[in-house]
Amino acid sequence: MIKEMLTNVREKRPLVHNITNYVTVNDCANALLAIGAAPIMSDEIDDVCDITEICTGLNINIGTLNKNTVKAMLTAGTKAKELFHPVLLDPVGAGASQMRTQTADLIIKEVKPTVIRGNISEIKALAQGKSTTKGVDADIADAVSENNIESVICFAKQFSKETGAVIVITGAIDLIVNETVAYSVTNGHQMMSSITGTGCMLSAIMTAFISANSEDILKACLAAVSMMGVCGERAYKRLTEHDGNATYRNYIIDELYNITPEELEKGAKYEIR
Amino acid sequence: MIKEMLTNVREKRPLVHNITNYVTVNDCANALLAIGAAPIMSDEIDDVCDITEICTGLNINIGTLNKNTVKAMLTAGTKAKELFHPVLLDPVGAGASQMRTQTADLIIKEVKPTVIRGNISEIKALAQGKSTTKGVDADIADAVSENNIESVICFAKQFSKETGAVIVITGAIDLIVNETVAYSVTNGHQMMSSITGTGCMLSAIMTAFISANSEDILKACLAAVSMMGVCGERAYKRLTEHDGNATYRNYIIDELYNITPEELEKGAKYEIR
Amino acid sequence: MIKEMLTNVREKRPLVHNITNYVTVNDCANALLAIGAAPIMSDEIDDVCDITEICTGLNINIGTLNKNTVKAMLTAGTKAKELFHPVLLDPVGAGASQMRTQTADLIIKEVKPTVIRGNISEIKALAQGKSTTKGVDADIADAVSENNIESVICFAKQFSKETGAVIVITGAIDLIVNETVAYSVTNGHQMMSSITGTGCMLSAIMTAFISANSEDILKACLAAVSMMGVCGERAYKRLTEHDGNATYRNYIIDELYNITPEELEKGAKYEIR
Repeated sequence: MIKEMLTNVREKRPLVHNITNYVTVNDCANALLAIGAAPIMSDEIDDVCDITEICTGLNINIGTLNKNTVKAMLTAGTKAKELFHPVLLDPVGAGASQMRTQTADLIIKEVKPTVIRGNISEIKALAQGKSTTKGVDADIADAVSENNIESVICFAKQFSKETGAVIVITGAIDLIVNETVAYSVTNGHQMMSSITGTGCMLSAIMTAFISANSEDILKACLAAVSMMGVCGERAYKRLTEHDGNATYRNYIIDELYNITPEELEKGAKYEIR
Repeated sequence: MIKEMLTNVREKRPLVHNITNYVTVNDCANALLAIGAAPIMSDEIDDVCDITEICTGLNINIGTLNKNTVKAMLTAGTKAKELFHPVLLDPVGAGASQMRTQTADLIIKEVKPTVIRGNISEIKALAQGKSTTKGVDADIADAVSENNIESVICFAKQFSKETGAVIVITGAIDLIVNETVAYSVTNGHQMMSSITGTGCMLSAIMTAFISANSEDILKACLAAVSMMGVCGERAYKRLTEHDGNATYRNYIIDELYNITPEELEKGAKYEIR
Repeated sequence: MIKEMLTNVREKRPLVHNITNYVTVNDCANALLAIGAAPIMSDEIDDVCDITEICTGLNINIGTLNKNTVKAMLTAGTKAKELFHPVLLDPVGAGASQMRTQTADLIIKEVKPTVIRGNISEIKALAQGKSTTKGVDADIADAVSENNIESVICFAKQFSKETGAVIVITGAIDLIVNETVAYSVTNGHQMMSSITGTGCMLSAIMTAFISANSEDILKACLAAVSMMGVCGERAYKRLTEHDGNATYRNYIIDELYNITPEELEKGAKYEIR
């Protein structure tokens, strides 16, 4: 099931429009190229409509938002939806500042993204109007565990119903949820949290997956989450004594480049909830 | 002939002013340092004139242009030309959006860049007022091959005549063309297209080459194109089984750092057309 | 003495707000994660106060300043000082342009940063109102050597007295100076100057060090400078024949990730002056 999703990305080579933060943008571009997709970045309001028109999906990441780029996000998002392109929102830091929370709320309301992907603190801030976001990382008190997973799935289903979006919550346990179905994924390695941009890269490649598999958004998200996690595991195994987070970052992108659909299928650890 | 060009860069250590996109800017800076030049980035209209004044060349890349940086490009470009500094234009995405095409046109008209370097889709969009640009990558239908190379050289010579610039078209076969002379280069490896920024890095180092070899812009461009290609080949040979595009990116910059003028001369595969 | 400083960073995991340039921002984020701290980037005036409020320190780097981000720097800096957070200023390119010099002057006057870290050209431009800054690198004529070190310490002490900040001047010999005490550090490797961002990364991690060790800012700065230098030495030893500046960059961050407090203490080469 999952392997076909990756095969479709590699065959269709979707061109993804990214309005994303300048911290991890290079990694997002290389991650997209690694999986066989292609990136284009544009965040100027007078440029985004033309760019989105030649793409097949839009990735909106508010990690280093400013007043100009927020306008571009809304404009590009509206245009992409008119063209029936899937749109992903990564609400980086929602709950950490009023501007980030309000911007994410506004994009959800006006653009109606196809997928919303964040950590548990960010998603809670948007779903419940409160949060304990610690910067751009999830607050530890919010972490999804076997103890609270049912209640998290419950509120995620509710949030999916309210927004019409597939909700993807990533952490040690990842959740991919729509109104009625939930998947959990347990791939990945905790060292991934010592790299900036694993979440941003996931959002970028997930946009390629939903572009190339628009007939099944939920499973496309599941495939993207599994792929990031499996590649994190495989990259970890390559590390030698003196390697640290910089080498790990490179190895993760290398694995995105090298993994075959069959290896992905075999490595993916998910269950339906 | 080519080796002296690199020797001049390493001896003169040109300081290059870059107004460039935030996707690949770090790679451009490290590529410039690798070849023995030095980078400075500034894209604020109130800052660019002072910065360009202490530099010896200007690299304008419109990859993530916005209304403010476009003004800075025009201001810096005009100032650089007043100071007789070489100016390179990399029209990223020309043909993909009206704003990009118009901005590149405006810079060509007002600044009169010394060199214009892009892929075939971008150059065609500017030279012929039409294009099939697929995002920031060349459209496959446009690719330069042995079948169409004469007609491409012909239109590039014409475009050089109109603009006064050396025209550099990069792809599987690279072309470096002025009004009367054309070189083709066949160095490089197709895996370079799976990395973001090889074009941007080439534009950055090419600006250093034309700064340090301003008496022969055409050959300076030829040397820069050859260097990027030869380093792409050498880096490819270093790759082992699990390496992908992230490691390849690092190895290409490493090769820019390590290659000697003699190795460059020996590896360069070019012919006059 | 130094090892406790690093232990404190790893235990307290300070969240550092960075308003920094887009050239080296990814390396700054990964360097902060490597040492056990956490990064957040925000440069929009309407966002910075909320963000700084959840952090414990602020790193202001003017490397790619623009009119909007300068306002955000002043606003965030003022807010951070109200909250008694340590603030570091990295005046990239002060002396190279009027806007950079004036912006740094303004931040010093209005924010009163806790630490000012730059190369000798930048610090001289700010302390003495003149400079021979060569772009963003120190001018060779300004280099700190055993011949002029006493006079440099003298003007740095005076500048510390005027500004109330600890002054950190980095180069082949690094100096950490307050009104009355000066340390010199001779760790590091000259190849570090062939990588973009070693100074920016140092400023970022130094902000984490002063956040986690606010009771002794001078020694926290000393520890950060030593750590960057020791890691530069250790990373250099890992390099093999074909490695260049890209691999060196990755290895330095890897060393920041792996070094123990004991290894740092043992490797640090400093003396009180």
